[in-house]
Amino acid sequence: MTSSDKTFGRLLLMPNALDLGAAEVPLTDVIAGGVIAQASRLLHWVVEDSRSARAFLNRVNKIAPLAQPLQQTLIEELPRAPKGPQRVIPGKPAKSAPAPAKPEVARASAWELLLNPALEGHDIGLLSEAGLPGVADPGALLVAAAHDLGIPVIALSGPSSITLAIAASGLNGQSFVFHGYLQSEANPRRARLRELEATSKRLQQTQVFIETPYRNAVMLETALEVLQPTTRLAISCGLTLAEGWSLCRTAAQWKAAKIELPDRVPAVFSLLG
Amino acid sequence: MTSSDKTFGRLLLMPNALDLGAAEVPLTDVIAGGVIAQASRLLHWVVEDSRSARAFLNRVNKIAPLAQPLQQTLIEELPRAPKGPQRVIPGKPAKSAPAPAKPEVARASAWELLLNPALEGHDIGLLSEAGLPGVADPGALLVAAAHDLGIPVIALSGPSSITLAIAASGLNGQSFVFHGYLQSEANPRRARLRELEATSKRLQQTQVFIETPYRNAVMLETALEVLQPTTRLAISCGLTLAEGWSLCRTAAQWKAAKIELPDRVPAVFSLLG
Repeated sequence: MTSSDKTFGRLLLMPNALDLGAAEVPLTDVIAGGVIAQASRLLHWVVEDSRSARAFLNRVNKIAPLAQPLQQTLIEELPRAPKGPQRVIPGKPAKSAPAPAKPEVARASAWELLLNPALEGHDIGLLSEAGLPGVADPGALLVAAAHDLGIPVIALSGPSSITLAIAASGLNGQSFVFHGYLQSEANPRRARLRELEATSKRLQQTQVFIETPYRNAVMLETALEVLQPTTRLAISCGLTLAEGWSLCRTAAQWKAAKIELPDRVPAVFSLLG
Repeated sequence: MTSSDKTFGRLLLMPNALDLGAAEVPLTDVIAGGVIAQASRLLHWVVEDSRSARAFLNRVNKIAPLAQPLQQTLIEELPRAPKGPQRVIPGKPAKSAPAPAKPEVARASAWELLLNPALEGHDIGLLSEAGLPGVADPGALLVAAAHDLGIPVIALSGPSSITLAIAASGLNGQSFVFHGYLQSEANPRRARLRELEATSKRLQQTQVFIETPYRNAVMLETALEVLQPTTRLAISCGLTLAEGWSLCRTAAQWKAAKIELPDRVPAVFSLLG
């Protein structure tokens, strides 16, 4: 949009498969050929985790040979964010929330170093461990810095567990909220689930959240404890995986069905009262 | 998950390109080869619009020849929802919101007729005019009916403008709301934008909405009129298209830049105060 764009490289937001590198799914089943070809040509990467990025590029290489050997490809890691659920305290910015736009700060920051190849005219790929970077995943701060510097940002088509889960839920996809992780302590989590149920009922707005896989079963248990019997709860487990499934049932039906959630497969929960 | 699944066909949620059939983008740039192959094998479709569905299948056919001639493929249309922006009145269910779960009603409904091929063991593809069915698009009621009938629902990877826009915004992707269309009247829209800005500030939650393309410019104008100068506004125009772009600027920067939005290209707006 500005004259400087012509000389800058772009920041390409590269989708990753949702199997967390288990290579259970052929990459060509979840990512478009044209996107895989773009990945094969990139010489500069900023990634959530370099090991999983190398695994991704090895998968790419089998489909579209890399433009240069993996050993020579520049792979930088994003600054580490605290792992696991991040609690969002209303009134306080979430840990992961981008800082307010302060171009003069961003220019002096670590972000500019990571974006340097783009300033010198090379495209950079931004890759997370699964799905789209910046959506329920790190990367937003780098994207924000790119905007501040006038680097073109291009999001490439690929799987995102949030939208796949909403589509598969059959709940309202015209109005929805993604909350990330809920509270992990029992009582605040119960209160929060009741609050989400009330909001969903009032606004007919689907409420979406995730949980670390080993707590999937506890999350379902708590939800069935507090939700009204007619509230609909959709769960997508292992989206895009061969054994993956999506179900939407009322709380009463879930209770009766006694379905156990796997403890190693990511799940997305959506509810509508 | 139930024994009856074995004999039922599945409902496959098939992504469509975001170019609204203009075929500006090769399908292989936005949809995975494996997904295109699945589309080529389906003999039964339920679609938002049969004309655009035929255009999609013609595009598929050039990459993965259809299992049977298009003329013999069964293409049913979803019952027409009112076109254009649908106003969500808090406290009242949106027109597009799925009805509360009443399996006994769904069984007797038009949905069951549409799902009949799956009950007889055939896979059905659900396709909208752009992106993923059921996300900012019709289809959720059919998916809900499939769940009620015990038909497995599988969401296939593909482009969704909402998540692509959030990724490209650089705003908070750990917590966001999609509101669909806002009010079209000037004053309620102004009030709503102020309300979204306040909420985004309070919860550090990205607020996402869309507008019919011919009103893109008016939406931007109104937003710049009411938003505080430091509030960040991201706009993605023509996502996945060659001429598409995503920019994130403060309201003050947008004002100074005087960027005009195209009136025929879909845009997604995201803000964070």
